[in-house]
Amino acid sequence: RAADPATTISAATVKTAEQLRDKAMHDDTGYRIVESLTTEIGPRLAGSDADQRARDWAVAKFKALGYDKVYTEPVTFPLWVRRSEHGAIVAPFPQPLVLTALGYSPGTPKGGLTAQVVKFDSLDALKAADPTSVKGKIVYIGYRMQRTKDGHDYGMGSAVRTAGPPIAAAKGAAGYLLRSAGTDADQRIAHTGVTGFRDPAKAIPAAALSNPDSDQLERVLAYGKPVTLKLDLDCGVVGEYTGANVIGEITGRKHPDQVVAIGGHLDSWDPGTGAIDDGAGVAIAMAAGKLIHDLPQRPDRTIRVIAFANEEMGLWGGRAYADKHAREVAKFQLGTESDFGAGPVWRMSASVKPAARGAITQIANVLEPIGVAYDAKKPGGGGSDLSQMHGKGMAALTLTQDGTHYFDWHHTPNDTLDKIDPKQLAQNVAVYAAFSYMAAQADGDFGSAPGAFAGDGADE
Amino acid sequence: RAADPATTISAATVKTAEQLRDKAMHDDTGYRIVESLTTEIGPRLAGSDADQRARDWAVAKFKALGYDKVYTEPVTFPLWVRRSEHGAIVAPFPQPLVLTALGYSPGTPKGGLTAQVVKFDSLDALKAADPTSVKGKIVYIGYRMQRTKDGHDYGMGSAVRTAGPPIAAAKGAAGYLLRSAGTDADQRIAHTGVTGFRDPAKAIPAAALSNPDSDQLERVLAYGKPVTLKLDLDCGVVGEYTGANVIGEITGRKHPDQVVAIGGHLDSWDPGTGAIDDGAGVAIAMAAGKLIHDLPQRPDRTIRVIAFANEEMGLWGGRAYADKHAREVAKFQLGTESDFGAGPVWRMSASVKPAARGAITQIANVLEPIGVAYDAKKPGGGGSDLSQMHGKGMAALTLTQDGTHYFDWHHTPNDTLDKIDPKQLAQNVAVYAAFSYMAAQADGDFGSAPGAFAGDGADE
Ligand SMILES: [Zn+2]
Ligand SMILES: [Zn+2]
Ligand SMILES: [Zn+2]
Ligand SMILES: [Zn+2]
Repeated sequence: RAADPATTISAATVKTAEQLRDKAMHDDTGYRIVESLTTEIGPRLAGSDADQRARDWAVAKFKALGYDKVYTEPVTFPLWVRRSEHGAIVAPFPQPLVLTALGYSPGTPKGGLTAQVVKFDSLDALKAADPTSVKGKIVYIGYRMQRTKDGHDYGMGSAVRTAGPPIAAAKGAAGYLLRSAGTDADQRIAHTGVTGFRDPAKAIPAAALSNPDSDQLERVLAYGKPVTLKLDLDCGVVGEYTGANVIGEITGRKHPDQVVAIGGHLDSWDPGTGAIDDGAGVAIAMAAGKLIHDLPQRPDRTIRVIAFANEEMGLWGGRAYADKHAREVAKFQLGTESDFGAGPVWRMSASVKPAARGAITQIANVLEPIGVAYDAKKPGGGGSDLSQMHGKGMAALTLTQDGTHYFDWHHTPNDTLDKIDPKQLAQNVAVYAAFSYMAAQADGDFGSAPGAFAGDGADE
Repeated sequence: RAADPATTISAATVKTAEQLRDKAMHDDTGYRIVESLTTEIGPRLAGSDADQRARDWAVAKFKALGYDKVYTEPVTFPLWVRRSEHGAIVAPFPQPLVLTALGYSPGTPKGGLTAQVVKFDSLDALKAADPTSVKGKIVYIGYRMQRTKDGHDYGMGSAVRTAGPPIAAAKGAAGYLLRSAGTDADQRIAHTGVTGFRDPAKAIPAAALSNPDSDQLERVLAYGKPVTLKLDLDCGVVGEYTGANVIGEITGRKHPDQVVAIGGHLDSWDPGTGAIDDGAGVAIAMAAGKLIHDLPQRPDRTIRVIAFANEEMGLWGGRAYADKHAREVAKFQLGTESDFGAGPVWRMSASVKPAARGAITQIANVLEPIGVAYDAKKPGGGGSDLSQMHGKGMAALTLTQDGTHYFDWHHTPNDTLDKIDPKQLAQNVAVYAAFSYMAAQADGDFGSAPGAFAGDGADE
């Protein structure tokens, strides 16, 4: 075929994007949104009463911000509930432990599960274990997650949490515990998160210990005597629930059916108020759309902000969205989701067609003065839920935030508003507003097409 | 009367004290003791099953360390228990709150206490409040404690916790909440501690909110609508309990009946494992005695190490000790207790007779190279429980530790072993070993006598 014409962005658009960026850096719309969500709704576990209240909040907030179109799309998923959770060392040194049940963990039998613990240092050690060493015991994995700017050690941390429980169950374990996938080494707060249990009939009670409790358990194990634990978890899958993705649009002036897709996920884990995960992402995207709304005229294409349902228990909102919209993937100009806290964006990467690299460089040039470096070698994955649309062929960015402290608070009671720096949040809004506007105004597309970016190595 | 002869310390004793000090700085006995206590016993709320286990541990540990004499003295106190605690905002924005019941708080009625909250910024504001503004409501005081090296803001922080509840009760409040008396501004962990309720019949349910939960409550109040809270506390005084002070002695060679008294308190609050409060104090004193025990010969006077019972709910061990031993006060050469964590000692002050100031200066000279400054203008209060013996006339030191982070963790689940730096703990042992040995060897006394230091301004 003929050489693909280069996608470009006009000088006027670049200038407007720079103004948007500079205005956003000193605008508190994003902070006010996340403050509103975390204060008025607080925790919003998928399927809880607060899930409905959060959707009502999102619809009302989009409308109050002046979005042109606000609607929802249903998302159905298994309903998992947490009622109570307790743990203790029974012998040799009786004392309570701070732990939290993991998503899709079944409850323990009435009266609790009491069993000896068997420790492994890694997931690989568990994989290699003889089932006879595990059968009837509570498996404990002591992997210690490290703090990094890009959070890459969550790859292993989350694998211990998701892959570990089914492996232990398959070997006949009675229960599963991990050292929290968290980087707050001295906080007595456990990190929840989902497990990889697919079949409830094969699931076993699974929980995370806080890091200091893991230290304590390891000290007790070091005495060399058998250690008996008791887990008392009242939780489990109790049915099915239909929530919704909540969507707001700033309608495109020239091509209303072509969309720049941005967003975050509306659900949160229940122990905290879901400020960094992912009230921040919802707020960043909503505020970016609002700033574009406030321009003298609508952009050429539509800005679509999606507040996804139940990301936490397995990308349910993102998968439902991709299933519903896969056939329209070519209409998605560019997309990405914010779901890594509220630290500043420091790196951008993209999965786009070669002829759109120039436009991406134009976007990068606008973002560079506010601290964003363009890495032309990495793919763009689109973020958590929107990774599913990228998987269908949507051109996507990755906008990497500074997540040095993200895993100190992630999935714990400590995920609260005080962890968000308003100035850092504003930088995120500036990044999202500027790139979204430029993508919406571009002369040409970024290469979205069915299956376009298969095998680009994006792992989100 | 004739001029009091000066108390002095021989050059040989000073030299031995310097050797003790230097050895202690590189000795891990103290750390091993606090590790053992916090691992093998863990939390040890006064009157709980762990109280008995902790006493057994202390007796065994004194014996294992080679103490010459180990015994207990009974201490009787009201038995307060904590079974469970929950709190929530009911309206306008329903969500759970992280809180912890305070010592001597009664439970709420079955089904919880639901009432409107009324906020005060300070204890004085509550004192000034018209009872009609408080009656039937849950009083909340939002005093925010500041971090300081000497921890002096706990004066106000603890007053809000102890004096506030009875004042609110007297005005007809239905319940009492405070912003935790703690300096960890962003940790979702509440700080427990005792209230000043004297008469259980006049007590009302009382609890502390974590600092981020206090922020949240204040944000919700700022909407200007009535705010309803629900407290569900299952706790209360259920009878009386007799525990014990556990005492170990290194018996004096010349004057076995004259004692240097050091110690810490063996009980802890239940949410943590009582590492900094006050496993550290017990370990510092026990290790100091052990290092003196290891010298070629016993000191002239006895080193008495006291692990006090139930300091937390009102100095019960210290008061029982002082009641029992007041008549022998003149036999107490010098005393002080460690109960402010495991940070390094940076200041020494003393309440002694004028003729003993020279000996105190000699002690100060030995401690100066390891970072202890002598403040000759301040009194010495003797620490928490031993303040009671000082009140009876015991000459006393105050050895002030660096408590910058003490109130980040104090009385919370976060009071765990990881908060102790072994090197800093060793410095404390060095201070206690050196001063105790010098006081035990002194030629002359420090002025202990019935009522000797009344009105010296020591506030501990
Ligand atoms: Zn997330
Ligand atoms: Zn998450
Ligand atoms: Zn204490
Ligand atoms: Zn205390």
